[in-house]
Amino acid sequence: MKLSDVATPALILDRARLEANIARMAQRFEGTGVRLRPHLKTAKSAEVARLATVGQFGGITVSTLAEARYFAGHGFADITYAVGLVPAKVAALAELMATGIALTVLTDNAAAARAIADEAARCGILLPVLIEIDSGAHRAGVVPDGSELPEIAKVLDGSEGTSVAGVLTHAGHAYHCDGIEGIKRIAEDERRAVVDAAARLAEAGIPCPTVSAGSTPTAVHGESVEGLTEFRPGVYMFFDLDQAGIGACAPHDIAVSVLASVIGHQTEHGRVNIDAGSLALSQDASANEFFGETGYGWVMDAAGGARIGKLHVEGVNQEHGMVTGPGGVPFGDLPVGAKIRVLPNHACITAAAYDKYFVIDSSGDANKVVAEWDRVNGW
Amino acid sequence: MKLSDVATPALILDRARLEANIARMAQRFEGTGVRLRPHLKTAKSAEVARLATVGQFGGITVSTLAEARYFAGHGFADITYAVGLVPAKVAALAELMATGIALTVLTDNAAAARAIADEAARCGILLPVLIEIDSGAHRAGVVPDGSELPEIAKVLDGSEGTSVAGVLTHAGHAYHCDGIEGIKRIAEDERRAVVDAAARLAEAGIPCPTVSAGSTPTAVHGESVEGLTEFRPGVYMFFDLDQAGIGACAPHDIAVSVLASVIGHQTEHGRVNIDAGSLALSQDASANEFFGETGYGWVMDAAGGARIGKLHVEGVNQEHGMVTGPGGVPFGDLPVGAKIRVLPNHACITAAAYDKYFVIDSSGDANKVVAEWDRVNGW
Repeated sequence: MKLSDVATPALILDRARLEANIARMAQRFEGTGVRLRPHLKTAKSAEVARLATVGQFGGITVSTLAEARYFAGHGFADITYAVGLVPAKVAALAELMATGIALTVLTDNAAAARAIADEAARCGILLPVLIEIDSGAHRAGVVPDGSELPEIAKVLDGSEGTSVAGVLTHAGHAYHCDGIEGIKRIAEDERRAVVDAAARLAEAGIPCPTVSAGSTPTAVHGESVEGLTEFRPGVYMFFDLDQAGIGACAPHDIAVSVLASVIGHQTEHGRVNIDAGSLALSQDASANEFFGETGYGWVMDAAGGARIGKLHVEGVNQEHGMVTGPGGVPFGDLPVGAKIRVLPNHACITAAAYDKYFVIDSSGDANKVVAEWDRVNGW
Repeated sequence: MKLSDVATPALILDRARLEANIARMAQRFEGTGVRLRPHLKTAKSAEVARLATVGQFGGITVSTLAEARYFAGHGFADITYAVGLVPAKVAALAELMATGIALTVLTDNAAAARAIADEAARCGILLPVLIEIDSGAHRAGVVPDGSELPEIAKVLDGSEGTSVAGVLTHAGHAYHCDGIEGIKRIAEDERRAVVDAAARLAEAGIPCPTVSAGSTPTAVHGESVEGLTEFRPGVYMFFDLDQAGIGACAPHDIAVSVLASVIGHQTEHGRVNIDAGSLALSQDASANEFFGETGYGWVMDAAGGARIGKLHVEGVNQEHGMVTGPGGVPFGDLPVGAKIRVLPNHACITAAAYDKYFVIDSSGDANKVVAEWDRVNGW
C-alpha cells in the first residue's frame, strides 16, 4: 500500500524517526543504573512498546485501565498505572494480577489509601502503591516535607492489602519552560523531590524501593539522576511541536503526523481547507506558546515531510481545518484532493482520535506503508 | 446496572432530555414544508438517529464516510455527506450506492467538481452533488452572486457522472453571536444566501431541487424558512454549554455529560482532581466566550445533575481534570472515589472520545442505566 492511497484523515508514524528517538533516550540512561519505564500513554501501541523496551528491563507505564489490560494481553508483565487510583478500580486490577501481571498503582491521599487497602484485602491481593509527590507542577501529589507523606505511607504499610512501592513524581511544569536552563532547574527539583521523599520514608523505617521521576523534557536535559531508580518519559518516542518548542527535540525528529486532503479553496480569504479538523488534529494549541505561525499544526508535504512555506492550520471546526500562511497559499500546488501532512502540537492528544497507525519508513521509500499498528483508546 | 457502578470516565446520555430536545425541534419545522434532515455528526448513533427521524422523512446528514457506512448499515437510506468531497472518496461512495443508498455530496470547487464527475462516471454512478454556499461564515462555499456558482453548476450538470442536487450552506458564524437578535439576522443571511443561489441557478436553466440551510442556533431562532426545502441542525439533540451560552437552549436541556471520579485532593490549591482530562472532556473551551467559571465544563452532582456550587473544570491534562470554584471546593462531599458529572462545552467534540453512551432517563430513576448505545467514531 502506498501512503498516497491512504484514506484521509489518517495517523502516520515514521518508524525511522521513532527508532532514532527511542535509541537516543535509551542511550541517555545507559550505564546510569536508572531503569527506563517508558510511558505508553502517547503511543498506546504494543508494537511501539516492544521497540521502546528493547534492551530495557521490560516495565512500562500506563495512564488508563484500558491500557493496562491491553498491554498485559500483549505480554507486558510489569505495569505501573500512574494516575491516582480510585478504590472502585481495585477489583479490575485484581483480575489482571491474577493472570500473573505485576501491577503498581498510585495515590496521594490517606483516605483513598485506606479505601484502596480495604478493597485490595477484600479482593485477596497485595497491591504495591506508589505515593505521588508534587515536585512543583502542583497538579497532584503531596509535598515531600509535609505531614501527608508519612501518614499515607503508614496506612499503606500497615494494611494487609497494600505495600509502599515507593514514590513517584512528574514534573509537568517542565512543559512550560523558557529554555533549556529552566528545564535543567526543574529536572533537579523533580529529582530532589522524590529523593527527599524517599529519605523521609527511610527515616520513618518504611522501605521505599522505587524512586520514580519522569517527563520527556527533564529526561532529555536533566543533569543528575542520583538517587532515582527509574524514569518514565513517554512523548519522546514521537515528539511533537510542543516538545520542539521546549527544546526537547528538533522538528525533524517528530515521528507522528496526520495525513489530510485538501477539500476546498477559499482564494478570497487566502486559505485552503483540509479534511482534518478538531477531531482529527485535536484542539491542542500548546506549541503556539513557543512558535509563531503554528495554530493547530504545521503543514508539510505528504511525501517528504518538509514544511510547505510557513503554512499552518489556522483554525479548526469538527471536520474542517483552515490552512494559511504568511506568504500566501500556493493554490496551484494544492488542488482539491492533494494530500499534505500536519505535524501536531501535542502527539498524545492528536493520536487519541485514531485506532491505528499507518507506518512508513523515511529511511527508505517514504511513500510505502510498511505496516499498520493498532492503538488502544478509551478507558 | 446503576449509574453509580459505571467505570469512569464515561459518556452519559439522558434520554428524557434527548427526546424533549428532538420533539421541540420537530415542532419548530412542523407545517413549514421544510424537511428536517438531522445532522448526526454529534450523536454518531443509530439509536439517536432513529429517535431524531421519527415523524420526519427519514433523510439524515453525516460528516464522515465512516458515518455514511454505519448509518447505511443501520437502515438509513437517504444520506447527505456534508463535507467538501475529495474525488478519491467517490469509489467508496459508489459501493454504498450499489447497496441502494441514496447519497448526496458537496463541493465548492469547479476543478474538484470535474474530477468528482470523472471519477463518478468511471465508477458508473450518477452522483447528486450539492454546491456549498458561503452565507457569511467564510469557512467554505462560494458566494451566491459570484462567477464560481454557475461555473460549478455547469460542470456538474454537463457531466455524465454528476447532477446538481441543489445548494447548501451552514451559518457557522451563528455560534459566536451576541444574543438572539444577532442569531435572527444570521438566520436570515443563511436563508437568503441559498435562496438567492437557487434563484441564480434557475435563471441559468439549471434545476435546483434542494435548498438546504442549517445550524442549531438558526434553526431555533430563525424567523423565516421561505424558499428552503430542508434544514440540517445537529447539536440540538444533545445541546451543550456553548449552545446554552448562545441562547439556543437552557443548561437544563443539555442531555449529554461525562461521568467522572474524584482521584485526588489538592487542598492547599483549593482543587479536587478528577479522572476526566483532555481526552475525556476535549480541550474545547467555547462556552467561556459566554459564561464565567466554565473552563472545560460545569461540575454537576452525579445523581440529579444539579450544579455543585459554581464548580468547573479549570484545567485539563491528558487524564487529569482540575476542579475548582469561586466559593471553594466542598472537599468533605467529594472524597476520592466520589462521582460527579461534567457538562461539556461542545458535545460534538467531547462525545467523540467515547465508543458508547450509557443511557439514563431523568424522568424516572436517574441512577439507572436503561441502555447502552454505540457510536461510530473515526473516518
